[in-house]
Amino acid sequence: MRLGILGGGQLARMMVPPAHRLGIEVWTLEREVACPAVRAGAQEVVGDWSDLATVLKFAETVDVLTLDHEFTPASILQAVEERGTPVRPGSATLSCIGDKYGQKRRLAEFGLPVAESCLATELPRPGWGWPIVLKTRRCGYDGKGNQTLNSLDGIELSDEFYAERFVKFQREIAVMVARDLNGKTLAYPMVETVQKDHICVEVRLSDQDLNPRAQELAVRAAKAVEAVGVLGVEIFEMSNGELVVNELAPRPHNSGHYTLDACVTSQFENHVRAVTGLPLGSTEPTVPAAVMVNLLGDGHGGRRPFGIEKALESDRVALHLYDKISKPGRKVGHLTATGATLEEAAEQAERAAAALHFAERTPV
Amino acid sequence: MRLGILGGGQLARMMVPPAHRLGIEVWTLEREVACPAVRAGAQEVVGDWSDLATVLKFAETVDVLTLDHEFTPASILQAVEERGTPVRPGSATLSCIGDKYGQKRRLAEFGLPVAESCLATELPRPGWGWPIVLKTRRCGYDGKGNQTLNSLDGIELSDEFYAERFVKFQREIAVMVARDLNGKTLAYPMVETVQKDHICVEVRLSDQDLNPRAQELAVRAAKAVEAVGVLGVEIFEMSNGELVVNELAPRPHNSGHYTLDACVTSQFENHVRAVTGLPLGSTEPTVPAAVMVNLLGDGHGGRRPFGIEKALESDRVALHLYDKISKPGRKVGHLTATGATLEEAAEQAERAAAALHFAERTPV
Repeated sequence: MRLGILGGGQLARMMVPPAHRLGIEVWTLEREVACPAVRAGAQEVVGDWSDLATVLKFAETVDVLTLDHEFTPASILQAVEERGTPVRPGSATLSCIGDKYGQKRRLAEFGLPVAESCLATELPRPGWGWPIVLKTRRCGYDGKGNQTLNSLDGIELSDEFYAERFVKFQREIAVMVARDLNGKTLAYPMVETVQKDHICVEVRLSDQDLNPRAQELAVRAAKAVEAVGVLGVEIFEMSNGELVVNELAPRPHNSGHYTLDACVTSQFENHVRAVTGLPLGSTEPTVPAAVMVNLLGDGHGGRRPFGIEKALESDRVALHLYDKISKPGRKVGHLTATGATLEEAAEQAERAAAALHFAERTPV
Repeated sequence: MRLGILGGGQLARMMVPPAHRLGIEVWTLEREVACPAVRAGAQEVVGDWSDLATVLKFAETVDVLTLDHEFTPASILQAVEERGTPVRPGSATLSCIGDKYGQKRRLAEFGLPVAESCLATELPRPGWGWPIVLKTRRCGYDGKGNQTLNSLDGIELSDEFYAERFVKFQREIAVMVARDLNGKTLAYPMVETVQKDHICVEVRLSDQDLNPRAQELAVRAAKAVEAVGVLGVEIFEMSNGELVVNELAPRPHNSGHYTLDACVTSQFENHVRAVTGLPLGSTEPTVPAAVMVNLLGDGHGGRRPFGIEKALESDRVALHLYDKISKPGRKVGHLTATGATLEEAAEQAERAAAALHFAERTPV
């Protein structure tokens, strides 16, 4: 059984060990040599995942194709499907999610609570007031391509963009769900995500009253887009306690990295299981609390940070490096602390993350 | 940081993912190409780990050397140490453990309870009665090289063998311990091991009154042999409740495979951490009960068994295949079921293992 992955970044990298345990070979198509997945044991094919002929050729060599990112056009994935290699999640799902405006419409059609939205060319909308959020329909991530506007002055409006009515939320949460080929869907526990400059910096797992409602929404979202594999569901919690679905990610997601150390089956293993036609593993947590902190490059440096000994002084910190060369702000790893309470886990995780740095520092 | 491993079997294979997560490259020296560790992402050096020049050359390319098995003579490892590459556990520890008779004497010197033993040439011993157990001093495993004797008739006795007074035990248990470079030692929870034809077929974790005593013995044994990294301690529980240390394994061990799915930090990660000078992770269990079943080849066949879908029907079964070609009786993988009770975990694990077969079967 050969699993092909378009892209070989950290998400592909973390799929490699569970695939190997299940007797599945992993092949990645990536533009650069020695990508993070290859450095963790994936078989390497170097090529452009946005080129039709390259992707078709790669797809012929694998039993099933999945993805590390959503930058391959859905039309290419549809061509792969037509030639007989399954793409999971399928091109229809990816096409729907890949257009954030279409995604929002689909969720609304299925009765899921979402922010009101329209195409940028339909602005202004009566009754929306200000601010509004203008978003790129395709390929935005980590807040890239989003603008909060207080007027339309000087803004060029095209159908490449869509607008959302401003949603005043009190908290961002996320639920990862895994959906198998038969539509069976399991939800991971809900987490709180903490953003800084639009980048997720911390994810917090603890028991929450909201959990059943958040999980139910996430499962319905997965059904709405006919997901296969793991789907990340970002949700806003409003000040009145209502939940609004923000965005979907049709693959393992940063907000689910904690599952590697805090759940019976990780999001990566369940993604591999689902896309290769295997049953899902339990998504239940194994710990009362966990906090995941992203490690962002603090300068140009090597692949392995300084301070690992110190970071691991707490015996419940698990470190996950991606073997990427550090650049300022680049996600180069994460760590997760587990504990009896959220406070304890957060303290351990933050202390460990503070001990790590990738750039050389002048001794004081 | 480069970790070199002598041998590239399943133990080396399972060290690869935690090493990669910690930013450590893994290089294996193995006689055959494409060994299990290399198939999981280790860097490959093909060569004979029992040849002095080959091992010395390999050792020069890594920062620290550890092992997948104990078949490299301690004299070679001592030569590596003399040239400046640390071997962990060290040649002195391996030399002591590698001679099972010397191992037993060392444990006795440190006041640990062991069966009475003598060199084979010192037989018969007054007061021992029959049967006695004759064991090969070196390189025995899985009961190979052991004989239970009711007389010495026709037995050739040499110093290659030693004898043990027969110990009538009611249960075999095991404790894995991890010991860091500073001598800090953490014990994993005690497990019960079930043998069939001298091969470990099942390992059972559940809460046990014996645990504190068993862990204490194991920690003392690790100190007695000055272990670094993970050490497996096999213990007999006698019918009167006394514990007797049977044998040590100076590395991750089959009876500790359950830690991958049932403890905060696996034995493989703690071995990698300890031998590379990092602090140990918590050895606490994350589940009330777990049962590990070894998967033995049921005939000549492929690397991936039939029946995986069925085996994974229980959502708390984790499958670990070693990517080895099946041969009758060969350890080709293991699986672990976790659960609320030992009975539940055992039922799930045994049902899953029964669903898997490596050899083609004629449809009924």
